[in-house]
Amino acid sequence: MSEAAQTLEGWYCLHDFRSIDWVAWKAISGNEREAAIKEFTAFLEKWEGAEARKEGSHALYSIVGQKADFMLMLLRPTLEDLNEIENAFNKTTFAQFTIPAYSYVSVVELSNYNPSNNVDPETDPMIQGRLKPELPKWKHVCFYPMDKRREGNDNWYMLPMEERKKMMYSHGMIGRSYAGKVKQIITGSVGFDDWEWGVTLFANDALQFKKLVYEMRFDEVSARYGEFGSFYVGNQLTREAVPGYLHV
Amino acid sequence: MSEAAQTLEGWYCLHDFRSIDWVAWKAISGNEREAAIKEFTAFLEKWEGAEARKEGSHALYSIVGQKADFMLMLLRPTLEDLNEIENAFNKTTFAQFTIPAYSYVSVVELSNYNPSNNVDPETDPMIQGRLKPELPKWKHVCFYPMDKRREGNDNWYMLPMEERKKMMYSHGMIGRSYAGKVKQIITGSVGFDDWEWGVTLFANDALQFKKLVYEMRFDEVSARYGEFGSFYVGNQLTREAVPGYLHV
Amino acid sequence: MSEAAQTLEGWYCLHDFRSIDWVAWKAISGNEREAAIKEFTAFLEKWEGAEARKEGSHALYSIVGQKADFMLMLLRPTLEDLNEIENAFNKTTFAQFTIPAYSYVSVVELSNYNPSNNVDPETDPMIQGRLKPELPKWKHVCFYPMDKRREGNDNWYMLPMEERKKMMYSHGMIGRSYAGKVKQIITGSVGFDDWEWGVTLFANDALQFKKLVYEMRFDEVSARYGEFGSFYVGNQLTREAVPGYLHV
Amino acid sequence: MSEAAQTLEGWYCLHDFRSIDWVAWKAISGNEREAAIKEFTAFLEKWEGAEARKEGSHALYSIVGQKADFMLMLLRPTLEDLNEIENAFNKTTFAQFTIPAYSYVSVVELSNYNPSNNVDPETDPMIQGRLKPELPKWKHVCFYPMDKRREGNDNWYMLPMEERKKMMYSHGMIGRSYAGKVKQIITGSVGFDDWEWGVTLFANDALQFKKLVYEMRFDEVSARYGEFGSFYVGNQLTREAVPGYLHV
Amino acid sequence: MSEAAQTLEGWYCLHDFRSIDWVAWKAISGNEREAAIKEFTAFLEKWEGAEARKEGSHALYSIVGQKADFMLMLLRPTLEDLNEIENAFNKTTFAQFTIPAYSYVSVVELSNYNPSNNVDPETDPMIQGRLKPELPKWKHVCFYPMDKRREGNDNWYMLPMEERKKMMYSHGMIGRSYAGKVKQIITGSVGFDDWEWGVTLFANDALQFKKLVYEMRFDEVSARYGEFGSFYVGNQLTREAVPGYLHV
Repeated sequence: MSEAAQTLEGWYCLHDFRSIDWVAWKAISGNEREAAIKEFTAFLEKWEGAEARKEGSHALYSIVGQKADFMLMLLRPTLEDLNEIENAFNKTTFAQFTIPAYSYVSVVELSNYNPSNNVDPETDPMIQGRLKPELPKWKHVCFYPMDKRREGNDNWYMLPMEERKKMMYSHGMIGRSYAGKVKQIITGSVGFDDWEWGVTLFANDALQFKKLVYEMRFDEVSARYGEFGSFYVGNQLTREAVPGYLHV
Repeated sequence: MSEAAQTLEGWYCLHDFRSIDWVAWKAISGNEREAAIKEFTAFLEKWEGAEARKEGSHALYSIVGQKADFMLMLLRPTLEDLNEIENAFNKTTFAQFTIPAYSYVSVVELSNYNPSNNVDPETDPMIQGRLKPELPKWKHVCFYPMDKRREGNDNWYMLPMEERKKMMYSHGMIGRSYAGKVKQIITGSVGFDDWEWGVTLFANDALQFKKLVYEMRFDEVSARYGEFGSFYVGNQLTREAVPGYLHV
Repeated sequence: MSEAAQTLEGWYCLHDFRSIDWVAWKAISGNEREAAIKEFTAFLEKWEGAEARKEGSHALYSIVGQKADFMLMLLRPTLEDLNEIENAFNKTTFAQFTIPAYSYVSVVELSNYNPSNNVDPETDPMIQGRLKPELPKWKHVCFYPMDKRREGNDNWYMLPMEERKKMMYSHGMIGRSYAGKVKQIITGSVGFDDWEWGVTLFANDALQFKKLVYEMRFDEVSARYGEFGSFYVGNQLTREAVPGYLHV
Repeated sequence: MSEAAQTLEGWYCLHDFRSIDWVAWKAISGNEREAAIKEFTAFLEKWEGAEARKEGSHALYSIVGQKADFMLMLLRPTLEDLNEIENAFNKTTFAQFTIPAYSYVSVVELSNYNPSNNVDPETDPMIQGRLKPELPKWKHVCFYPMDKRREGNDNWYMLPMEERKKMMYSHGMIGRSYAGKVKQIITGSVGFDDWEWGVTLFANDALQFKKLVYEMRFDEVSARYGEFGSFYVGNQLTREAVPGYLHV
Repeated sequence: MSEAAQTLEGWYCLHDFRSIDWVAWKAISGNEREAAIKEFTAFLEKWEGAEARKEGSHALYSIVGQKADFMLMLLRPTLEDLNEIENAFNKTTFAQFTIPAYSYVSVVELSNYNPSNNVDPETDPMIQGRLKPELPKWKHVCFYPMDKRREGNDNWYMLPMEERKKMMYSHGMIGRSYAGKVKQIITGSVGFDDWEWGVTLFANDALQFKKLVYEMRFDEVSARYGEFGSFYVGNQLTREAVPGYLHV
């Protein structure tokens, strides 16, 4: 048996992708649409309050292509919190005009291949800040789920700890070289959803997503051991922009 | 030919995942919704009676994310019992507002790699209690189906009994180290559904699902021989909470 | 080139899985439902006549779980016969309330790895009875399609005849040890449907499906060379029970 | 780099599989149905004219099982011709009662592993007849798409020309042994659709499909290098039989 | 770690495949259809303006077979531009009669295995013209997404730069031999969509797609390292031809 890396977990995370039923949306009256939009933006305002109180964080992005029209990413302390928001949102008028496209359940995770002995992760402010992060307000988002491969000679989970540690270090170095250009939130989903991790990247220049993911693909961790799900890319949709986005 | 492990089987099991058609649900009158909820909670009460009489057990959890809105897990002595419940439920008013999302048919199973010669499983109270269990009323549930791999050099079914026994013992040790934190119900589905086993975990701290499944993934049984289906995670939905959950 | 085993073929076979649209079914009047049920049971009576005249056979089972509500299995001398029944059934009122869930087209097959030289399969009553069987009226059914694997070193179709014959013999021995508990109908579907064979098992104790399939999985033919599709399990639905099953 | 075999191409080919929406079909009046059927059979007559003038060919078969209700196979000189027919058909009343089930775009292909130097394929009547064939009016059809495998040691496209030629010769010999029983039309779809070839077989005895495909499966070309998609099998549906087939 | 090739990126690209809901389209009045067509062709005119100003490019092709009825390919400087067009199009009347079939998000890419030191790609007119191309007005289009394989011994991303460079050179030679017959636009989608590249081919003779892709398949880059998604093939649909195409 190979040794599992230590992990630290923070806020639970729900990625919620939805498409808009434009035909039905156009069929209702302007007043009804206005009311629905207000109900939706009221939710966003409420979540901004939670974010201000450091009780959670969220992000809203319009998605490019047919996979979805928008993605809502929500961070909260418990699975019950996420379920409540989901349940409340599903009951809104606006939600009636959306079609579920994809979702992902996970928890913010720090993979601790090189734990420092001098800090207590439960109180260390930097670690706590990374476990309960305020999501960046950057122009673009990229989300994809991933697994570590377990196939024939390419079986990550059969490798000795030292080898994995070394590879993860080199992998992290690539990530670090994009500091200031790409912020990444890693969320763990083992036991929660169909892949082992969710990766959410934020950037002001969308090309940096491509540069980062492509460079990493030549790194042994990805080249031999990475399995990737669907990629979603989108543009920031601020609360202020929502009415225009939905105006018909 | 490799030797099959002995297995003991208990109650049959149906996992029934459904989504709610919120648009249709909101379209009917409050009175109609109230009647539908009463019909549904009457089913739950009836099943509680069966549980009290030790004629079965069940669990109701709301599911996080878009895969489903809730999961009903039912244990009964026969496949006919499960089919009858399914058929009766499908005819209710509430069921008209649900959309089938996923289901799983299996039977509670004890994999008997180390059978004791001193007890008769047909009468031993501990074994009988595990084969016909009352499902825990814990806060969270995690369900996933799985297979043992049969690929190239990683073929579980070609391994000698002794090797499998040794690996399963080490695997079981991990499970046991979560005693008090995670309760697991293993159900066998060879001949009944698309995977070989269903795993249902219960915990009061959802993070323990992640810890347990992640730790096991480094164990050779999972690392080399485990194939996993979709993961579903949810929160307990008591009968008392149903009206609030469905209130619009 | 490896040598193909001889096969004998009998009646053509259609497995037809359907779900019931309960919402629509409940929406029509009791009289309309009664008429629809009568039309359906009249089909069943007609097919019983064909069975009595040894012109075919059929079986009706309710399916457990969401994959389907019921399975109709039909044996007839020609593909045209099956197509006619399908076409006629699709035009009934009852069919309007069903949703196609899955189907499988095949032909009853005897895989003749050890052909006897003393009998003429075209006239031998035992062989003819197996090729044109009356389906058992047992309590449970299990259906799954399967392939023989062709992957790397596990390529059934590249094995010498002698090796395949030996493995199939050992495989058959397991099947035979379930005589009286499980009856199996093997249907070949090479050239007809997406897998190479369909396996339909009948039993009065559903647990025997699990025991049989699990035991076989350790047999080299299955362990190394078996690829399995979806499993469907169900309970007998007699013509007399149909009205109750559909009563709302 | 391995050398590609020479290929000759003839008419473009569209396989169009559709299911019938029986509920909607039954909901319109008998007069409307009659008009829709007339419009459809007028198309068939028109295509018969094209066939008589050797400007194309077509075939109509009812499909057994739920994959589709019927298959229309169309051969025409250009992709524009096929697109026009498709477009015109989609605008008919009858098409409104059909549901797209599957389609395949390809071009009639002769794989020329042993080109003769003495004939000019552009003018040779036998070759031209095979590239622009009149489809047989036989009782049964079988369609499936396929690829040549490119996996590990089983990579068709890395084999030397000589080896492929030898295997294809032996493969062709099996096909030839079914002369008079099975006619096969090979269409190439590299660059046009999701598999590399489409195979359409015609026979008066459907069992010959199974015999042929099963025998070929033991041939190294199929055993090691064949990857197969879905199989569709059906019965001839003459223009004269269409009204009866659609009568409700 | 293997070294990543340099890449140059130009305009962002959206491939948008849609089917037409003919039943709904036929159900509205001729006037409504005329208005919807005018709104759609006004979009096309507007995009032609952008193309004339070299602010983007687009292509409209009808697709053969059931995968989609038409494909709209759009090139624009930013992801926001694409999202705006998508959003505006979704709000049109015509879009209400279309059903999303597939989409692909990528960016025009030049893979720079042999960078010249003498030119500045940011200003070099030839390179800039290839990064911000005007799409050809040729009769046929072929689109497919692809990956470089990472499996066992066939792992592109573990190969040394020199080996990849050599293979890509030989691969490019095949492409060049089709100059004048096939124009190809390579778009990179790492970090943007589910495959690593999108390939869009244009030709006046559709057969050239088959010839090119088939010949390349024997090249080691494709034979050992290419993984391909769905192929879409279609015919040019000029703005002038749109009304006729949609006329019912």
